[in-house]
Amino acid sequence: MLSNVLLRRVEWGDCDPAGIVFNSNFFRWFDHGTTMLYEAAGWPKHLLLKTFGATGAALVDTRASFRIPCSWGDDIAITSTVTEVRNSSFDVRHVLTRDGKVCVEGSEIRVWSVHNPETGLIKSAPIPEVLVARFRAG
Amino acid sequence: MLSNVLLRRVEWGDCDPAGIVFNSNFFRWFDHGTTMLYEAAGWPKHLLLKTFGATGAALVDTRASFRIPCSWGDDIAITSTVTEVRNSSFDVRHVLTRDGKVCVEGSEIRVWSVHNPETGLIKSAPIPEVLVARFRAG
Amino acid sequence: MLSNVLLRRVEWGDCDPAGIVFNSNFFRWFDHGTTMLYEAAGWPKHLLLKTFGATGAALVDTRASFRIPCSWGDDIAITSTVTEVRNSSFDVRHVLTRDGKVCVEGSEIRVWSVHNPETGLIKSAPIPEVLVARFRAG
Amino acid sequence: MLSNVLLRRVEWGDCDPAGIVFNSNFFRWFDHGTTMLYEAAGWPKHLLLKTFGATGAALVDTRASFRIPCSWGDDIAITSTVTEVRNSSFDVRHVLTRDGKVCVEGSEIRVWSVHNPETGLIKSAPIPEVLVARFRAG
Repeated sequence: MLSNVLLRRVEWGDCDPAGIVFNSNFFRWFDHGTTMLYEAAGWPKHLLLKTFGATGAALVDTRASFRIPCSWGDDIAITSTVTEVRNSSFDVRHVLTRDGKVCVEGSEIRVWSVHNPETGLIKSAPIPEVLVARFRAG
Repeated sequence: MLSNVLLRRVEWGDCDPAGIVFNSNFFRWFDHGTTMLYEAAGWPKHLLLKTFGATGAALVDTRASFRIPCSWGDDIAITSTVTEVRNSSFDVRHVLTRDGKVCVEGSEIRVWSVHNPETGLIKSAPIPEVLVARFRAG
Repeated sequence: MLSNVLLRRVEWGDCDPAGIVFNSNFFRWFDHGTTMLYEAAGWPKHLLLKTFGATGAALVDTRASFRIPCSWGDDIAITSTVTEVRNSSFDVRHVLTRDGKVCVEGSEIRVWSVHNPETGLIKSAPIPEVLVARFRAG
Repeated sequence: MLSNVLLRRVEWGDCDPAGIVFNSNFFRWFDHGTTMLYEAAGWPKHLLLKTFGATGAALVDTRASFRIPCSWGDDIAITSTVTEVRNSSFDVRHVLTRDGKVCVEGSEIRVWSVHNPETGLIKSAPIPEVLVARFRAG
């Protein structure tokens, strides 16, 4: 399955009065991790949405376990991996490490979403085959 | 000129490792202060954009002076006031206080913006007269 | 068990290019929901940390399920409830509704944490009895 | 005077419902730009604060002018430059470009701040000479 690694520097503004990363920022980083998976698949998000008339892959469930705190100045790596692909949804696992040690483990369930021209609303749809193929090819 | 007061509680996640509000959050709050000015004018932002085909009032310049730090748990008030209205732009002043003492002073210059159906881009436009009237009436 | 309700207005800056709340913001709001549980228990966070030499209740696991998108201008309610209290950790459930309909369900597992004066590090500790009593009394 | 360039990718979560960067994020990035100036000067922020007993360089005034909107997927460069150094304060200019075109210009006035062991409060202090020398050497 497709995997991609992002390197980040934890910033002062990412951290709270305890001096560690405020938890919501991990989810912001994980979201970007998934965006970069599309790019690693050969489909930068802009191109992906435009080509397939999609609004994106809506997040329907996400979870994170925090093992070791991260602090400003830390150089971290986020490895994002597609763990399962279904007809119109897929799962991603994000593992955040510092110096090779796992600090945070996260997961996302996402549903491929397109505009419904009749209702003006958003509805789920099958994931484009080319994307599925790249997710599976790794 | 129109003025409106917002009350907020400073949250743990708004603050940095020094224990005080991280500066970017003030600008987030000021932006919301301007949104609430529209609502105080009788035009909730949703209605305003929809009625006049606008994309909003683009921020072209903003500034803030920080006098007294704010910290998590503080109950603050943000007074947003229209200070000048021109044909297609207007100025807003935001004064953030705690216990009546000025902590932060901010200002914004905003340009009324609409979709250009010919180019698909955004362009400036005259501020709707009804909004101007309410801004001036105070 | 103790429960508390927060009312919020979703702001323009909370939303992403799809026009809906960017997921990380829900976790920011949930964190504040837990802070307000302390206050509902009679222990504003400042007082709680100072009185018991605590650094807070470290988040070790959190999860959210997204059912209905929220957008800027929405008036939402977040009901935070202590669902279980153990010796040094507790669980919180957050239910976010709009017009009475559940939009997001979240949960947190938190570990009570204090400074270890010998090592300078943070370690888990029993939750103060007065707080446990208030959590349980509801 | 010392200058440093940061490269960033604008993320989906940095942008608002208009599809462009929400203004507060620019200030977050500028703050990190200043942090990286310390590092470019040979003093990573952690080392700087620890060595000189400082709490950082408190932001007392900041301003930004927005010329061209940035959107998610944009690769941007932020050039941060020390523009003036006084006894206990200094100025920084941040220029954000995309494809060589200036999108945002920002500025900061910062005051060197240390703990006052007598009062427990923060007070301004002369900028460490070694840092001043590196700021001036460029």
